Amino acid sequence: MPTLHRTLPALRRLRLANAFFQQPARLRLRPAAQPLRSLHSSPQVRQEEKKASPTTSASSADHAPQDAPDRPQSKIKYTSDSYPDLKRDSRFKTVSKEDVEHFKKILGSEAAILDGVTNETGEEDFEQYNSDWMRKYRGQCRLVLKPETTEQVSGVLKYCNEQSLAVVPQGGNSGLVGGSVPVFDEIVINLSRLNKVRSFDDVSGVLVADAGVILQQADEYVGKQNHIFPLDLGAKGTCQIGANVATNAGGLRLLRYGSMHGNVLGLECVLPDGTIMDDLSKLRKNNTGYDLKQLFIGGEGTIGIITAISILCPQRSSAVNVAYFGLESYEKVMEAFKEAKKQLGEILSAFELMDRQSQSLYHQASGAKLPLEGEHPFYCLIETSGSNTEHDSEKLNAFLEHVMSEEIVSDGVVAESETQLQSLWACREGISEAGQHWGGVYKYDLSIPLPELYSLVEDARKMFESNGLMHTEDETFPVKDVVGYGHMGDSNLHLNVATRRYDKEVERALEPWVYEWVAKRQGSISAEHGLGLAKKAFIGYSRSETMIRLMGKIKETFDPKGIMNPYKYI
Amino acid sequence: MPTLHRTLPALRRLRLANAFFQQPARLRLRPAAQPLRSLHSSPQVRQEEKKASPTTSASSADHAPQDAPDRPQSKIKYTSDSYPDLKRDSRFKTVSKEDVEHFKKILGSEAAILDGVTNETGEEDFEQYNSDWMRKYRGQCRLVLKPETTEQVSGVLKYCNEQSLAVVPQGGNSGLVGGSVPVFDEIVINLSRLNKVRSFDDVSGVLVADAGVILQQADEYVGKQNHIFPLDLGAKGTCQIGANVATNAGGLRLLRYGSMHGNVLGLECVLPDGTIMDDLSKLRKNNTGYDLKQLFIGGEGTIGIITAISILCPQRSSAVNVAYFGLESYEKVMEAFKEAKKQLGEILSAFELMDRQSQSLYHQASGAKLPLEGEHPFYCLIETSGSNTEHDSEKLNAFLEHVMSEEIVSDGVVAESETQLQSLWACREGISEAGQHWGGVYKYDLSIPLPELYSLVEDARKMFESNGLMHTEDETFPVKDVVGYGHMGDSNLHLNVATRRYDKEVERALEPWVYEWVAKRQGSISAEHGLGLAKKAFIGYSRSETMIRLMGKIKETFDPKGIMNPYKYI
Repeated sequence: MPTLHRTLPALRRLRLANAFFQQPARLRLRPAAQPLRSLHSSPQVRQEEKKASPTTSASSADHAPQDAPDRPQSKIKYTSDSYPDLKRDSRFKTVSKEDVEHFKKILGSEAAILDGVTNETGEEDFEQYNSDWMRKYRGQCRLVLKPETTEQVSGVLKYCNEQSLAVVPQGGNSGLVGGSVPVFDEIVINLSRLNKVRSFDDVSGVLVADAGVILQQADEYVGKQNHIFPLDLGAKGTCQIGANVATNAGGLRLLRYGSMHGNVLGLECVLPDGTIMDDLSKLRKNNTGYDLKQLFIGGEGTIGIITAISILCPQRSSAVNVAYFGLESYEKVMEAFKEAKKQLGEILSAFELMDRQSQSLYHQASGAKLPLEGEHPFYCLIETSGSNTEHDSEKLNAFLEHVMSEEIVSDGVVAESETQLQSLWACREGISEAGQHWGGVYKYDLSIPLPELYSLVEDARKMFESNGLMHTEDETFPVKDVVGYGHMGDSNLHLNVATRRYDKEVERALEPWVYEWVAKRQGSISAEHGLGLAKKAFIGYSRSETMIRLMGKIKETFDPKGIMNPYKYI
Repeated sequence: MPTLHRTLPALRRLRLANAFFQQPARLRLRPAAQPLRSLHSSPQVRQEEKKASPTTSASSADHAPQDAPDRPQSKIKYTSDSYPDLKRDSRFKTVSKEDVEHFKKILGSEAAILDGVTNETGEEDFEQYNSDWMRKYRGQCRLVLKPETTEQVSGVLKYCNEQSLAVVPQGGNSGLVGGSVPVFDEIVINLSRLNKVRSFDDVSGVLVADAGVILQQADEYVGKQNHIFPLDLGAKGTCQIGANVATNAGGLRLLRYGSMHGNVLGLECVLPDGTIMDDLSKLRKNNTGYDLKQLFIGGEGTIGIITAISILCPQRSSAVNVAYFGLESYEKVMEAFKEAKKQLGEILSAFELMDRQSQSLYHQASGAKLPLEGEHPFYCLIETSGSNTEHDSEKLNAFLEHVMSEEIVSDGVVAESETQLQSLWACREGISEAGQHWGGVYKYDLSIPLPELYSLVEDARKMFESNGLMHTEDETFPVKDVVGYGHMGDSNLHLNVATRRYDKEVERALEPWVYEWVAKRQGSISAEHGLGLAKKAFIGYSRSETMIRLMGKIKETFDPKGIMNPYKYI
């Protein structure tokens, strides 16, 4: 291989840019008191922090769902009030004192039950189980059960099924679509005490662990043995691996390691009638019948409770590099992505897209210096992860040289320290919160085929301009700007509409316009968040009637009495 | 990174070994007239070649299933004779002349129907549809339909369902468990004419193509645009991508790119009642309800017919390296695998295991010179694929230096040319046929957790020694040797029992002993071949009663009349 010509104009420009990039942007935009990950360190802490600053909490996640801009609230509205059409299903029994006695027998310890049925436990004690961290949903549950073993889950479900008691399986309760909180008086079955690692084989990389193990702990556990958990996401300090599987969580590592459908090797589930379905295989290959576990992956707790998972963990990469580019058009972004795949191939671990508007908002809101001089219509962040620092840098440099000399990218910088690396990521990760700066954000998390991915943003702008709702400077217009960014490598766009105030007219302009736009391109109205309660009504935009009908049959087959996570999903 | 010390003793040994390895082993052991891939070039050719040398054809596939050793046969036995307990299901109607007329109306062209109902089409014309290439199964179908569009498949199935006519979906008919041939008079729906590529996006790497596209053609198609199909297997010249998905084919690229459950993004299927289920998504992320397509992946045509697939194709690697080692114990093999994952990380694309017995058989049968001097209890073949030749060689050399200086491997060679690369692969790929040299082979394709993977081979030897059935030299013993090899990286063992003659006693000693052994370790009795007819009776060794019961419900939900590929699977 020829030596790199480091004096080429392109790389000279790159060096200049790197020299310019001496002052790293302020590390993360989020308020110091509320960094995203520590926010999620435990449900208790989370709730307290949230109370302290309710106006921004809803937007501190990159993947916050579409919603009205947040307003200070003293109390979260009951879901049954927000959704007046939802009525409690009369087939379900109300929990009695006898039921509680029975559960006490099954679970043994007093610590395993939060009981507002037989005693005066206050509503505030239930808040962390009854409401979500976005403060968007609130149920009326008066009984939380925390089984410690699969057998206890089985005993509980068997009884609930016999007695027609509705239940909501709950992990770290960090979901974004209201899937993990009750709507009415469903019993919460919280998996947090089912939290042991069962085994890890550092030759095959197969981890077997209880559903309630926290994602971050699972990652640290395998990390000590040079592996990584094949999923990473903002809520890793709170969310649980069983629930990650139940919601088919996407996150940051999907581009490289693929989805749960490929990585999960086995599951142990408890069916609604208490039957334990032991499919906790450690095998990569097992062609013996329908792969039933796949229905539980992304099944959102509607056909059973996942009690343990077996998952393939890849080797941990020792070398990580990050570069940040400016580009002149979306076509150039596509070209850059194609070249990155080609030249970086096996070491490419992230390809993130940010438009000019998103970087401008980020700059204005945070005051952080942007990495590149001048403005570009588009920006990309590329991350590589590999086993050899020198090789990876060389590949990255060759790639940079190519894309700059071919004028695919206009300008670029490469992080030369961990601080710079974090600053570059902040330009991407800070967008979500930046939009909140002027009021609130309508957020959509969508999958769109790559060639048309960005057109939605352009069309949304046109739509708002034509109906006179948007102006970047004039404060009398409700919409300040429309920004687009996301996981380009996964065809996953985050469409954010930054507004100055809550406005019904904006909402009416957006919905169902966005869903219809996405449906026309065979996109997905929920790329990685799932359906829960929030998207239940919109599934028809992403799935055919035939499929919805078949899904109904699957639900009926597994959960004939409908006790599992009712009112949601399909 | 420090420069490699090429004078280190380990690498000196390596160089010496490379010098020794001047005479490449004869390329591939298979008879020149019958190389595996050309054997599969078209069904017609295949059949003719097979007739010319029926005694070896059954063993030329690496993944041939367990079976009695092949004997020359003039005629393949009817499945209904081999399985006398199987009776034709009287619910199914016999095809009438009126039915054929109706199908003619749906399919239009005469070329789309092979009709032995209304005319005198001879049995030999049906042979390629009625029997499998292993010459193990033979059905009695008298009507083959070859739809050219999804709508035609829909029309055909709708009619069959209404009329209770049983069907067998058929791709390239290269399966190993009798899943793609009829048992009685089921109608064959052959997908070979549904064979268009619908689209390929070279930015996302997403290929959308009809089910009947030949695997090799799909790979070549995306290869022209620098991508690879994420599946490769011996029968690639014949097998069809829809059937690959329907059987969840594993093959050679699984270690690197994972299974169909992760790579297939969408499917278009026709349900038994003719409904077209359009789930042909091109998205990597789509969390909107149960992932129904997963049931069709590995569903073996029992709940519907896959008519098109959407699949993620990775970037093609430009650099490929192959190394071959000798090791002193299975523990060392595990260590080498661990080190390979660690040091070769993202470029590791194959880690294959061969025991001494397998290499000895290969040497004796082929006369090929083995790559290493002296004997070792175990051998491994490692392949790397990456985007940069120099980097990959450097990584591989560093790895070799490490494993040799740490005495994890005892000796090794690295291919320095394409010819040597092929010769090294021949040592692995030639085993299957070598075993056949003395008579025949009982073959098992199993998944076993890695730590115990090789114990099965040792236990099988002990078993045969204790019951006096095995001797490597003495011709009076039926079993010559037991060899173990396979896809170590996928925990996939091929257990081959090389015999001198067909012997009922050997068979009785092996079954159900092997299945019980595997079941005790939560292994899989069918790693990648599926159930078909061959393994239907044994599913209980790999799946619980609960799961089999649930699978039955899935089948009933999708195919209430049971017309899809009857008598097989679960």
